[in-house]
Amino acid sequence: MPTYGYSDNKEDVLARLKKIEGQVRGLSRMVDNDVYCIDILTQITAASNGLKKVAIALLDDHIRHCVAEPPEGSNKDMVREATAAIERLVKS
Amino acid sequence: MPTYGYSDNKEDVLARLKKIEGQVRGLSRMVDNDVYCIDILTQITAASNGLKKVAIALLDDHIRHCVAEPPEGSNKDMVREATAAIERLVKS
Amino acid sequence: MPTYGYSDNKEDVLARLKKIEGQVRGLSRMVDNDVYCIDILTQITAASNGLKKVAIALLDDHIRHCVAEPPEGSNKDMVREATAAIERLVKS
Amino acid sequence: MPTYGYSDNKEDVLARLKKIEGQVRGLSRMVDNDVYCIDILTQITAASNGLKKVAIALLDDHIRHCVAEPPEGSNKDMVREATAAIERLVKS
Repeated sequence: MPTYGYSDNKEDVLARLKKIEGQVRGLSRMVDNDVYCIDILTQITAASNGLKKVAIALLDDHIRHCVAEPPEGSNKDMVREATAAIERLVKS
Repeated sequence: MPTYGYSDNKEDVLARLKKIEGQVRGLSRMVDNDVYCIDILTQITAASNGLKKVAIALLDDHIRHCVAEPPEGSNKDMVREATAAIERLVKS
Repeated sequence: MPTYGYSDNKEDVLARLKKIEGQVRGLSRMVDNDVYCIDILTQITAASNGLKKVAIALLDDHIRHCVAEPPEGSNKDMVREATAAIERLVKS
Repeated sequence: MPTYGYSDNKEDVLARLKKIEGQVRGLSRMVDNDVYCIDILTQITAASNGLKKVAIALLDDHIRHCVAEPPEGSNKDMVREATAAIERLVKS
């Protein structure tokens, strides 16, 4: 059974995701209640920053466990895969 | 009763937010099930891009209705407020 | 002869761009001298943040002068054009 | 004498940086000539995307050479340092 890097701080990542899910649900309520646009944008920025923080935490664990100390075989593809994921993230 | 710019495509914005909420809930499941980190990062990028699209749609409506044709009084603060929101978004 | 919004703080924008040009030239020197990768990334982030600040300053002036108070005719296209530019910027 | 990861494609990175330097110099000319704001924003986006591409190329080499196969000693700090650089980049 494979265990990936983020297993270490799984609880922390899950707690962050739960908070972000609440923020996105809050966004629906704000739009439904015609809240002022700029306040909604502030909440979107908060949720977006939350997602980026989760991504960075996962990346740190991934590089630490899967790239720096690959379980077996070549790690060439893992580096390429990791930087491709970073590139998509940087552009998101 | 105030109506803000995004009232026009409220349904579209709400549908997008519902989808993003599902993506974030999916992220919790993925982490819970120890899915491969890179696949989780891809889903984070998708949710993050979704949030940015909602933000751009709200901004378009906001600039169109609140900045270009302010309901009353000076629009000076509205421009400053809008660009401050854009700046936070660009940095998120 | 048309004068655009950023004419007001042209000197400030030009000074920022001059600094960014120097930062990019510095990046070439750093790469040429085999400077440690992380230090180069820090300098890239500084230049990138500088470009974003110039973009926000130009956008503020553009929304203030061309969108909020269009010189003539409809401002519909100007809003679309502005938000399209914001979208490209947010994704850059 | 230390050789860092990006030494491999140094010429490519230097060529990209030279192009970006030209784009930033072009930006100064555009502002000086009162070019339409949206066209300047498009050029800023191009330079910004160019810088991000250089950053990703350097990161790929860094992770490949310095993190995945560290020259000596512990690589713990290198991962932390790399993800901190990625975080600054993602937020820039």
